[in-house]
Amino acid sequence: MTGSTDRFADDPAFAVHEGGKLSVRTKGAITSIADLALTYTPGVARVSSAIAAEPELARRFTWAPRVVAVVSDGTAVLGLGDIGPAAALPVMEGKACLFREFAELDSVPVVLSTTDVDEIVAAVMAIAPSFGGINLEDISAPRCFEVEARLKEALQIPVMHDDQHGTAIVVLAALRNAATVTGRSLGDLRVVVSGAGAAGVACTKILLEAGIGEIAVADSKGLLHAGREGLTGSKQWLVEHTNPTGRSGSMVDALAGADVYLGLSGGSVAEEAIAAMAPGCIVFSLANPTPEVDPQMAAKYAAVVATGRSDLPNQINNVLAFPGVFRGAIDAGATAITEGMKLAAATAIAGVVGDQVRPDYVVPSPLDRRVAEAVAAAVADAARAEGVVRG
Amino acid sequence: MTGSTDRFADDPAFAVHEGGKLSVRTKGAITSIADLALTYTPGVARVSSAIAAEPELARRFTWAPRVVAVVSDGTAVLGLGDIGPAAALPVMEGKACLFREFAELDSVPVVLSTTDVDEIVAAVMAIAPSFGGINLEDISAPRCFEVEARLKEALQIPVMHDDQHGTAIVVLAALRNAATVTGRSLGDLRVVVSGAGAAGVACTKILLEAGIGEIAVADSKGLLHAGREGLTGSKQWLVEHTNPTGRSGSMVDALAGADVYLGLSGGSVAEEAIAAMAPGCIVFSLANPTPEVDPQMAAKYAAVVATGRSDLPNQINNVLAFPGVFRGAIDAGATAITEGMKLAAATAIAGVVGDQVRPDYVVPSPLDRRVAEAVAAAVADAARAEGVVRG
Repeated sequence: MTGSTDRFADDPAFAVHEGGKLSVRTKGAITSIADLALTYTPGVARVSSAIAAEPELARRFTWAPRVVAVVSDGTAVLGLGDIGPAAALPVMEGKACLFREFAELDSVPVVLSTTDVDEIVAAVMAIAPSFGGINLEDISAPRCFEVEARLKEALQIPVMHDDQHGTAIVVLAALRNAATVTGRSLGDLRVVVSGAGAAGVACTKILLEAGIGEIAVADSKGLLHAGREGLTGSKQWLVEHTNPTGRSGSMVDALAGADVYLGLSGGSVAEEAIAAMAPGCIVFSLANPTPEVDPQMAAKYAAVVATGRSDLPNQINNVLAFPGVFRGAIDAGATAITEGMKLAAATAIAGVVGDQVRPDYVVPSPLDRRVAEAVAAAVADAARAEGVVRG
Repeated sequence: MTGSTDRFADDPAFAVHEGGKLSVRTKGAITSIADLALTYTPGVARVSSAIAAEPELARRFTWAPRVVAVVSDGTAVLGLGDIGPAAALPVMEGKACLFREFAELDSVPVVLSTTDVDEIVAAVMAIAPSFGGINLEDISAPRCFEVEARLKEALQIPVMHDDQHGTAIVVLAALRNAATVTGRSLGDLRVVVSGAGAAGVACTKILLEAGIGEIAVADSKGLLHAGREGLTGSKQWLVEHTNPTGRSGSMVDALAGADVYLGLSGGSVAEEAIAAMAPGCIVFSLANPTPEVDPQMAAKYAAVVATGRSDLPNQINNVLAFPGVFRGAIDAGATAITEGMKLAAATAIAGVVGDQVRPDYVVPSPLDRRVAEAVAAAVADAARAEGVVRG
């Protein structure tokens, strides 16, 4: 199967994926009738009976409370788009690997054969008693907003669409440190967000909550403002909550004099646009593998440049957020993931950099083991402080 | 949490279940940016792209083809009845332990918040791309028949309701050897089945397929025969396919002169009824923990006695069947679990006993590691012989 003629032999990514990347293991071996009688019948009946009488005991005597379902319908996978559930599975297995590796959490990939919002919500609600958290992943906008909102409403466990909030948390963390290193406060910054999809909406929301002075968001047709016709849902929300000075025109127009460019859209931004930004500006260009703004060009004008790429400094990588966010939420017995918990996560990530902050070190390395621990502690504290935990 | 005042400290079953019994592990650690780039982005994108172009590659480069979902709605859990999904979870975790231990299969407990047949079918169909097989478990009759039939129809992966077919396979295996040890053939036997629920229907079907001479089935109202009014579904099927001599009356009436009693109902059978059976009769009394027929009493009249209990000889335990059945089906790339595959599994289990057969050794020990291997090989061969495998 992997002989010398194997067409996948030259790419080590395929070797890593051979047979999948995960395995379900048992905590104890079964080598005697006594083991069998405790792990399975008849002993298990006593445990099941106790839980039936006192449902909260499931938190102690089953694995569910610490298992995260990584759920996707395969419609917005990485930069690949709608590739379906089977092709999305390696990505979900990858997330499960990161949950294990960085937060010692169990997680299970759940890819769905449907892209219908009602059916997705029904399926996740049906299987929810099996899990302690739901990480939604790679579900396309605008369906992802409704899926997440309905599941958060229906379920009393942590639910988070990582493409939105994981990205938003890490962007805010990086921007906190970028502001510090350039001698500004968040309230001083004028930000232009390119992209009004899942990540664009979530980043804008968390930046507003964190006190960013002014944000303008552009979609493929230009800046979102009150004069744009026919906007609905999340774009209408953006019109109502951003662009307070009513800028119209293109994203490039808005970049003139702006402090921050946040690229979440793909495509390409010309050098003149970046050259026209404020002195000492900040460029976060997160399209992968090709950033919207060429990083070397950006460095001619910007004081801080961040990308999604692992081969460059300041990598904005969701792995800095989601393992610790779910670990903290689960540790605290949180019944939801709130805005306050996300803000706390961003502050914790920024704090790992701390006074080591430099223009090329505004976020920790994705491999920095201190991050998930710090995030988990901050998220758990925030959950307890807000009282969104089991009684 | 487990201090000296812990009310669960005296029962080792609770210690075994503390924190749950399962864990999801990764195949390789992530200790470098290179590891991260192969396990997750950007390397994973190449694997996902390849699967998007050629869906069959998911069988090679994801874990799904070898993962069994152990699905229950918690309505018929052991002898405990309808205890709900959370309380059912320790049993499903237990099954997952047995899949790992006896067949080296990964499996994931999926307990459902719904008992509605349409919603169960929709949820399992939605999550099916995540799995290579569906083990339905502890779903009450008659809903279990429809759930299984609809999922078998809809999905091109192995689907089996273990309470029905796992039990049936092991009963047939034991009966083959019991017939041998008492010098009879299966065609000679007159069998009385007590119980027309999930296990009763499935046992009756497999015994008919195996060539049992005459079977009469009793429910709580007595024998099923053409004169019974208002029967539907599986009971009507039994009327049409069993009891060829049209016996009416009670289960006890039918036991007079019968060769085999198969108890799947609970309750209690009087000594006179067993005393009236044919000389050298066979008593399989499978209610747990209290067999319908007291085993010591049964031994006064029967040549072979089997129960569901681990502390007695001849334990009829599903673990002899399901790990090997799914292992074999998955190894062969089977698209279904057919009657022929189940019959092959029963023959393989009986064959492990082979010429060592004795009245107190008609089935192997549940710990006998040869069983799953033999069953898997026989099931895979049967699947290939029937052509129910991927092309």
